[in-house]
Amino acid sequence: MKKMIDLNCDMGESFGRYTLGNDDEVIKYISSANVACGFHAGDPNIMDHTVRIAKEYGVGVGAHPSFPDLTGFGRRNMDIPRDELMNLIIYQIGALDIFCKKYGVKMQHVKPHGNLNNMADSDEQLAINIIDAIQSVNPDLPVFVKPNSQLHKVAERKGLPFKLEIFADRAYHKDFSLVSRKEEGAVLSDPEFVADRIIQIVTEGKVKTITGEEIEVQGETICVHGDTPTALDMIKVIKRRLEEAGIEVKSPFA
Amino acid sequence: MKKMIDLNCDMGESFGRYTLGNDDEVIKYISSANVACGFHAGDPNIMDHTVRIAKEYGVGVGAHPSFPDLTGFGRRNMDIPRDELMNLIIYQIGALDIFCKKYGVKMQHVKPHGNLNNMADSDEQLAINIIDAIQSVNPDLPVFVKPNSQLHKVAERKGLPFKLEIFADRAYHKDFSLVSRKEEGAVLSDPEFVADRIIQIVTEGKVKTITGEEIEVQGETICVHGDTPTALDMIKVIKRRLEEAGIEVKSPFA
Amino acid sequence: MKKMIDLNCDMGESFGRYTLGNDDEVIKYISSANVACGFHAGDPNIMDHTVRIAKEYGVGVGAHPSFPDLTGFGRRNMDIPRDELMNLIIYQIGALDIFCKKYGVKMQHVKPHGNLNNMADSDEQLAINIIDAIQSVNPDLPVFVKPNSQLHKVAERKGLPFKLEIFADRAYHKDFSLVSRKEEGAVLSDPEFVADRIIQIVTEGKVKTITGEEIEVQGETICVHGDTPTALDMIKVIKRRLEEAGIEVKSPFA
Amino acid sequence: MKKMIDLNCDMGESFGRYTLGNDDEVIKYISSANVACGFHAGDPNIMDHTVRIAKEYGVGVGAHPSFPDLTGFGRRNMDIPRDELMNLIIYQIGALDIFCKKYGVKMQHVKPHGNLNNMADSDEQLAINIIDAIQSVNPDLPVFVKPNSQLHKVAERKGLPFKLEIFADRAYHKDFSLVSRKEEGAVLSDPEFVADRIIQIVTEGKVKTITGEEIEVQGETICVHGDTPTALDMIKVIKRRLEEAGIEVKSPFA
Repeated sequence: MKKMIDLNCDMGESFGRYTLGNDDEVIKYISSANVACGFHAGDPNIMDHTVRIAKEYGVGVGAHPSFPDLTGFGRRNMDIPRDELMNLIIYQIGALDIFCKKYGVKMQHVKPHGNLNNMADSDEQLAINIIDAIQSVNPDLPVFVKPNSQLHKVAERKGLPFKLEIFADRAYHKDFSLVSRKEEGAVLSDPEFVADRIIQIVTEGKVKTITGEEIEVQGETICVHGDTPTALDMIKVIKRRLEEAGIEVKSPFA
Repeated sequence: MKKMIDLNCDMGESFGRYTLGNDDEVIKYISSANVACGFHAGDPNIMDHTVRIAKEYGVGVGAHPSFPDLTGFGRRNMDIPRDELMNLIIYQIGALDIFCKKYGVKMQHVKPHGNLNNMADSDEQLAINIIDAIQSVNPDLPVFVKPNSQLHKVAERKGLPFKLEIFADRAYHKDFSLVSRKEEGAVLSDPEFVADRIIQIVTEGKVKTITGEEIEVQGETICVHGDTPTALDMIKVIKRRLEEAGIEVKSPFA
Repeated sequence: MKKMIDLNCDMGESFGRYTLGNDDEVIKYISSANVACGFHAGDPNIMDHTVRIAKEYGVGVGAHPSFPDLTGFGRRNMDIPRDELMNLIIYQIGALDIFCKKYGVKMQHVKPHGNLNNMADSDEQLAINIIDAIQSVNPDLPVFVKPNSQLHKVAERKGLPFKLEIFADRAYHKDFSLVSRKEEGAVLSDPEFVADRIIQIVTEGKVKTITGEEIEVQGETICVHGDTPTALDMIKVIKRRLEEAGIEVKSPFA
Repeated sequence: MKKMIDLNCDMGESFGRYTLGNDDEVIKYISSANVACGFHAGDPNIMDHTVRIAKEYGVGVGAHPSFPDLTGFGRRNMDIPRDELMNLIIYQIGALDIFCKKYGVKMQHVKPHGNLNNMADSDEQLAINIIDAIQSVNPDLPVFVKPNSQLHKVAERKGLPFKLEIFADRAYHKDFSLVSRKEEGAVLSDPEFVADRIIQIVTEGKVKTITGEEIEVQGETICVHGDTPTALDMIKVIKRRLEEAGIEVKSPFA
């Protein structure tokens, strides 16, 4: 059987006059797009464009809901009551879903953005709120989760479909938590090295931690970043190396 | 055959800490709700609540999209390019639609809000943009239009279903345009007089203009306002008077 | 010497189409106004109006800066980096200060709003950021602080002028922390009882805690709330009772 | 006497995570900066940074107020009532002014942004509202105006100081109105040609229109754009050519 892996990337994070990333190029090399819904980035025009090009290149469209924080790009902790948070997430999913409907695309997944996602690593109640929000509108809509996070555990417990997500360019601890960006070696910038890691994950189900141990990992989707100047180059290298290794870049739902 | 008429009212126009109108009471007396989608008023919490109570009282839920203008409550002219305007409307419809989906309600109609609606009385291109936006996501979703407005004409020409809307508490000119609020007699405040007008519209298909002529009118839905201190009283009187006259208050789609 | 006390109230918390409180009446009975600056409430129109009526009634104008959170009314914890928080506060002070300048009024004080204030009860770094922001633009601009809060301690240590603020309608613990709104007896609603408390604070320098002990307190300004239906009545009773007790309601800077 | 000219450029138009232009380089070559105030672009962090670097390079700081339209970058017509528009402008001036105060800089000028400026070319009432807003807070604060615009005429009539502004990279009609961007030849992109034009304006007081006539012009400040990829190169060429021609780049207020 042919091996395959999903490459997902945050997309549609431009806003009005402001351009972020290089979506029109990056979209050609990935298999899943996490599309901003207007709360941390994106606007209705950008959302329309992003869904259109995702369809054009056969890329799966996921909602990328966030805290309501355009100025902070959704990267600040916020303390939002359960009902309000659920409704914020529902609103964003609905706003993106109608563009999917417009282009005859079925929404593929949800991936919480930034600190909404990060806080749900360890905050069980927040994870419950996120999972409940998704299930209240579509119990079959899969969520991307970090292995061993509260979001992972709650999705599993409540029966919401999920895919385990690995960050290609980030170093891991033994318990699968990410090494903080503040520490040396946290971010990996050599495309060939990153490609090697992904290939090992796909073919051996293993990844090397920052302290050198190999640990088992079931990565079903690999997150690559599109908003840095060198992002496109890295994605191209990864795509080429994966193909050379006989691994197909493909959405798990395709 | 029993006579009937639709009473529609703008709803869900509170925002965060701010309360506007008396939705929990008004909802009991109307048959269609135009629900704010967060651009001129409303927020995800309010939208959730409004759809929930609309379902509870069997009231039809419509999207009430607006220019993006929270400070100005959507009552300021804005000059927005066609694509962007269409996407703004689509976004708002989608954001409300998912709350309908959550509560198992089918979205009943769209009614543009405030100056988005007013500008489309005479601006044909704007009317086209609005109708195209709705048709691009749902060609069967009816729009509420003022008789003889460009929005009316374009909906008819393009084959989007529509319902003709009469403003119960506003005076009309002979050509069905509304008398400006700046003129004396433009706004009608006597509930019994307003009820008389509605009954005449329903039973005779006629309404008296500000200059006294009776003109023919095919009102299919009557707009009542819910955000003034006396609004609830007026709605109660209208409802009672209509029932006494053997006219059922009922959505045209129910 | 005649006894006196400052009554301060949050003002200018309406927004666009939305009205909150009854500023035009409340302003007549207080001596200091904490004016919203557009981040949790208020807009340029409201700010202009509020400063104008404050001047008309000889009421001191203070800036009431907040987290950027209109939907949450500034009542949600946010985690904002030091530089950004300082600049947010500076921006809001400047935006209000120019309306003071327009009306020939000198800005009297700063009082952080909602959770920006509450978090600075115990978060020393946040308190430092707030005090540094104020000092960076005006080292003589006094801040209202809760006794024993970090904001109090930092203002004192850094030499920023401050006034100790007591909440008239809230119960206190022995350490001057407020009894949580979630606990019974936290909010005092009997105007006569609240007036008694204020008089005791002013004349004896003592207040009774929720557990009955009398503790010493140096309240220099008393916060009264203006956004509840019964707020105006309470303020009127307090004003009358203070006058009967020979206590003048007066800004400490007048 | 040494000839001189002011080069002004829009600055501080980044927002949160989004970067626009290359302010840290452009600032070295200009003499006046029009600083966004958070309504079409800019945020408190950006404003702080922009005023700081302007001071560092001895560049005059002006307020660049806009319609409240972040999504549209202030480039959409809006119809805002007089009082509200005045208060919006005042608010923005105040918000920037406090950063000037923080850095010990005196605000040098005001230049309305985008469509707020463009609409005031021909809309006399809007021009009055803008000028009145500025005069209400500082009757000595100069405004940059296009020759013969309503903004120019109203400033002159009401006695507000002003400087005549020429757009270096735009073609003119005989009546000093700008050739629409929709027409061929409207935007000039050759740096040497643009430099030639500026030199002719400064040394001869003449500029060639799109139809070839030379018309007299009293340009006191030249607007250069900083948000295009080639903007920095153009500005460098202009600065060098002006110096070679013995013309000093200097603020008219320095």
